[in-house]
Amino acid sequence: MLNFSLIGAGRIGKMHAKIIKAHPKTNLKYVFDVNSKLANDVVKLIGCTKAKSIEQAINSKNVDAVLIASATPTHTKYITLAAKAGKAVFCEKPIDLNINNVNACQRDIQNFKVPIQIGFNRRFDLSHLKAQKARANKEIGELEMIVITSRDPKPPGIDYLKAAGGFFRDATIHDFDLTRFILGDDPVVQISAFGGALFDKNAKKIKDQDTAMFILKSKKGVLIHINNSRRAVYGYDQRVEVFGSKGMIISNNQVPNSVERFTSKSTNTKDTLHFFFIERYEQAYKDQFNEFVKCVIKKTTPKVTFEDGKNALIIANAAYKSLKSGKVINVKF
Amino acid sequence: MLNFSLIGAGRIGKMHAKIIKAHPKTNLKYVFDVNSKLANDVVKLIGCTKAKSIEQAINSKNVDAVLIASATPTHTKYITLAAKAGKAVFCEKPIDLNINNVNACQRDIQNFKVPIQIGFNRRFDLSHLKAQKARANKEIGELEMIVITSRDPKPPGIDYLKAAGGFFRDATIHDFDLTRFILGDDPVVQISAFGGALFDKNAKKIKDQDTAMFILKSKKGVLIHINNSRRAVYGYDQRVEVFGSKGMIISNNQVPNSVERFTSKSTNTKDTLHFFFIERYEQAYKDQFNEFVKCVIKKTTPKVTFEDGKNALIIANAAYKSLKSGKVINVKF
Amino acid sequence: MLNFSLIGAGRIGKMHAKIIKAHPKTNLKYVFDVNSKLANDVVKLIGCTKAKSIEQAINSKNVDAVLIASATPTHTKYITLAAKAGKAVFCEKPIDLNINNVNACQRDIQNFKVPIQIGFNRRFDLSHLKAQKARANKEIGELEMIVITSRDPKPPGIDYLKAAGGFFRDATIHDFDLTRFILGDDPVVQISAFGGALFDKNAKKIKDQDTAMFILKSKKGVLIHINNSRRAVYGYDQRVEVFGSKGMIISNNQVPNSVERFTSKSTNTKDTLHFFFIERYEQAYKDQFNEFVKCVIKKTTPKVTFEDGKNALIIANAAYKSLKSGKVINVKF
Amino acid sequence: MLNFSLIGAGRIGKMHAKIIKAHPKTNLKYVFDVNSKLANDVVKLIGCTKAKSIEQAINSKNVDAVLIASATPTHTKYITLAAKAGKAVFCEKPIDLNINNVNACQRDIQNFKVPIQIGFNRRFDLSHLKAQKARANKEIGELEMIVITSRDPKPPGIDYLKAAGGFFRDATIHDFDLTRFILGDDPVVQISAFGGALFDKNAKKIKDQDTAMFILKSKKGVLIHINNSRRAVYGYDQRVEVFGSKGMIISNNQVPNSVERFTSKSTNTKDTLHFFFIERYEQAYKDQFNEFVKCVIKKTTPKVTFEDGKNALIIANAAYKSLKSGKVINVKF
Repeated sequence: MLNFSLIGAGRIGKMHAKIIKAHPKTNLKYVFDVNSKLANDVVKLIGCTKAKSIEQAINSKNVDAVLIASATPTHTKYITLAAKAGKAVFCEKPIDLNINNVNACQRDIQNFKVPIQIGFNRRFDLSHLKAQKARANKEIGELEMIVITSRDPKPPGIDYLKAAGGFFRDATIHDFDLTRFILGDDPVVQISAFGGALFDKNAKKIKDQDTAMFILKSKKGVLIHINNSRRAVYGYDQRVEVFGSKGMIISNNQVPNSVERFTSKSTNTKDTLHFFFIERYEQAYKDQFNEFVKCVIKKTTPKVTFEDGKNALIIANAAYKSLKSGKVINVKF
Repeated sequence: MLNFSLIGAGRIGKMHAKIIKAHPKTNLKYVFDVNSKLANDVVKLIGCTKAKSIEQAINSKNVDAVLIASATPTHTKYITLAAKAGKAVFCEKPIDLNINNVNACQRDIQNFKVPIQIGFNRRFDLSHLKAQKARANKEIGELEMIVITSRDPKPPGIDYLKAAGGFFRDATIHDFDLTRFILGDDPVVQISAFGGALFDKNAKKIKDQDTAMFILKSKKGVLIHINNSRRAVYGYDQRVEVFGSKGMIISNNQVPNSVERFTSKSTNTKDTLHFFFIERYEQAYKDQFNEFVKCVIKKTTPKVTFEDGKNALIIANAAYKSLKSGKVINVKF
Repeated sequence: MLNFSLIGAGRIGKMHAKIIKAHPKTNLKYVFDVNSKLANDVVKLIGCTKAKSIEQAINSKNVDAVLIASATPTHTKYITLAAKAGKAVFCEKPIDLNINNVNACQRDIQNFKVPIQIGFNRRFDLSHLKAQKARANKEIGELEMIVITSRDPKPPGIDYLKAAGGFFRDATIHDFDLTRFILGDDPVVQISAFGGALFDKNAKKIKDQDTAMFILKSKKGVLIHINNSRRAVYGYDQRVEVFGSKGMIISNNQVPNSVERFTSKSTNTKDTLHFFFIERYEQAYKDQFNEFVKCVIKKTTPKVTFEDGKNALIIANAAYKSLKSGKVINVKF
Repeated sequence: MLNFSLIGAGRIGKMHAKIIKAHPKTNLKYVFDVNSKLANDVVKLIGCTKAKSIEQAINSKNVDAVLIASATPTHTKYITLAAKAGKAVFCEKPIDLNINNVNACQRDIQNFKVPIQIGFNRRFDLSHLKAQKARANKEIGELEMIVITSRDPKPPGIDYLKAAGGFFRDATIHDFDLTRFILGDDPVVQISAFGGALFDKNAKKIKDQDTAMFILKSKKGVLIHINNSRRAVYGYDQRVEVFGSKGMIISNNQVPNSVERFTSKSTNTKDTLHFFFIERYEQAYKDQFNEFVKCVIKKTTPKVTFEDGKNALIIANAAYKSLKSGKVINVKF
């Protein structure tokens, strides 16, 4: 049994707490949150111990791994603490909103050889994964285009927006990572970004975007399109299309049931899509965690690395540069 | 150019008039209808000649072929006249509602070797045809089950119902023929029929059915299910499912466009199905006629024979016997 | 926390063991199986106690409920023991293969007012449930037809077949129950059954069926079609179509992912369906158990009763009568 | 009856010849082609007269309208001739590859008030049209994004490529027009273009593109993505997605039949898409022509104007500017 400490007990932290509990080979030992009430909720839900301090949560001898789901600005600090304590680390995305902090953290931990996995859960979605494999095994021949549609059901509140580091670093970052995942060893070299606040007053107020489109180009010339919105009334819209010389594979949307309705006005009507990421990516979150557990036990390198977290941020930064300059920006990792 | 006479200028007659006109190798010479007004309509629409009598329409030297789309009770008489005059005959289904009349007609014409094709149009539908081929070429392995769903958009008026010879002989007869078509040389040997007037007062009044279900069994043991309704609010529901040891092929429903709608209540919503058979089977009616023209020109035997028309009626009669007796009826051709 | 004893530790028993373990309000106390090795497996998997006897499993004071997943011939005996011990009972279907045993059991337990729920899991499938609701809330208007397709991926071995009581009592019984569930208070009154051993030598050897079709009629005249096969190469085929005066709802098949493939030969290709019932009805099994737990805690009557288990068997028996006699059989509950 | 002259008797000319012949209110009087053999083919096919000169074809008194389907560089000359002769003009896209020629033509014909319709056939596709209407009638609320996928089945030969004026002016021009059509009175103001020759040696040789992606922005901030390829092995891929505050409408791909296949490896498999534009847009070409006939008869303004033809070219030119400069280009009409 691997003993975990959970840092951060908000919505995503709670989800991870349940996953740790349900896994046959892991146990939730400690939970820590600066908000004591949230930590108590997890204690009630799962029956673990509330850590008295971040140090107890991270440094305790009987803790094997730390799962970081706290506020983004605390990530690098906790990663560093855990690495120094020799604990395996699973950290939610993004590592940090500032690339300098990410680089500093990378330097700080470079001598501590602990496994670190970043929470790009979509890489573990069975359908997206099949799309990636269809590229890797050349089922679709030579890759030529990727089209990613990624739309949230509804915009978050202004507090979330203020802390999120901008639409591209908060939301599109998943799509930038998925792009890198599908491309394999063919790096992104250019990006052009468009965006605006078309409907969300909060986004407008803080000069954020709620709607965005991107084109990226890889070194081999593959063209990638991403489109994002903070609001799709029909549910959490998540599609990936991978097109090549021998065909196409689409990882299509998912509906929570398989009902189709036929009336005097319409046919083949399905229910709305999954509400949001926790429902849509339930399987992916479980498999992501299972992969981390396997890496810790077998002492292998996680499939989603610190470097991956950093590189997605580098693309997001280039996207902002493009948006502001009206130019195609060269991406340098 | 083959010159045609059209007998019967109602809804289906008009459709055939247009098809004759549009075909590169055929010409509509005469139209005849006991209702003079209907004949005049076709003259205006197409520019052919109104025959003064049924004899002129059928016997005229410059007429090569006769297309019979008149009222069912006149079919055998006109088939016989045309056969005796040496004209090729295309006759709408059913040949007659009474098997004795069909048999008498068959005897009357047996010495006149003219091509006769019966209007089981569904055999020419591209999708149903692919289902039949998947059985014939063993793409689906050994055939085990067929499921046919066949529902009209709305019930006809009482005058139509009174003349139609009952739901099974008027509507299901298409499905009985399609069953025989898909089965190939494996004959139907048993049938069990259920039916009732669940919603249509006219059907109830004349003790007809508006809803029916059937199970048929072939000599080899293949099981076939057919279900019918006189009313499907979402359009003309036409599906054929062919299931075997190596898989299944479905000839699915068709919508007149490819639009899908997504709202806050539902996703993937398509428009209603084609309204009725003229829209749904537009391609099949054209190909059916083209096949007849090829048979006449090349002097080959039509793919849908008088015998086929007779055998579908035999099954319909057995179905009524089953409905009345509450027993499984053996079908004898 | 409700303490459970699990009787029977085969494939389905193991599945239930995990469900009991995962439920927040239940605990697996004892497991019992005449095959000691199977019981040990569950002990290892879950960490419960192996009961020394069936009496310990059922009568122990700290046991609140008994989940019976043992061989069918033992069901009535264990139900009776548990009822007499005042324990709540969840029993897998069928209650027994012989209606006399079912009736005897019903008499034996009639004075022991314990909650008894029968394992017709499909009633809890979210999609089938929506189909049932669309009938109940008249979304589809007046119900006129039901079409159920239910095909297993591959036939079981001969040992299973010999013990299973025949295809209709083993497999179709689920569809008979689903029919009753969708019909609501409109009882089945007639049935016509067809079946044969088209491909499975074992079924043929013991004069069982591997392929079957049924038509049932309800008191109100609703027509129901069921078709079954022991083998569908494309996976576990489970579809329910409910048709009425205002439209249709289909509970369609389910694929484990949402990938679609496009090649030079084909488009929109999905992966094969779920392998079998444990994968397909994962959600239904969980919700079924949760419903039972709620009934026990709130002392309400289970939604799937002993009577339901008995009535499905009565229909199965009538189906065999129809198959043998070639007649439509009246169903009497 | 409107008498037509057809100028240009290649693949598209022939298609138009058949459409003119089939329309109840039009008649093909003359055909003209610099390649005499092609003109002869149409004469044989339809039975019209071969014009001795372009002047006869255009100026003859009994000619009401001219349909121009000749090589692109001849379009403006023939448009001008026809306009001066007072004939109604239907001209295939593009008007010309050089905006200066287009402008000159526009000046030349400004005083001749004849109806001129440009052949952007996709505006008449029933499904695309429903997408446009869903924007216009606000079914989808406020428009926010458009995604157009438009991929040919296979690249043309090098001769075609050399004459075509580049991928964007030859192919994407349809998508630029469709974008303008859907946007309504909200003009395109910016464009960013990416493209390359990823697989077609001919395209590479002449520095053309075979793969391209675009983002356009409208004055109101709507974001539009277009992606194009010269080769999709699964058929002619034509999709339009229109997304707004209240939902989404997709004009999806079309398959020539409604068959779905299920095997041991896959499910729901459809056949490949329509081969190319003549098959896919059969209905659109007919309705486009019918619209033109109505305009000529009722003396109304065509729905697709010379201005539309010019504006699509302006966007294509801006796209090339973006591709070369690596900048977002402002579009000025």
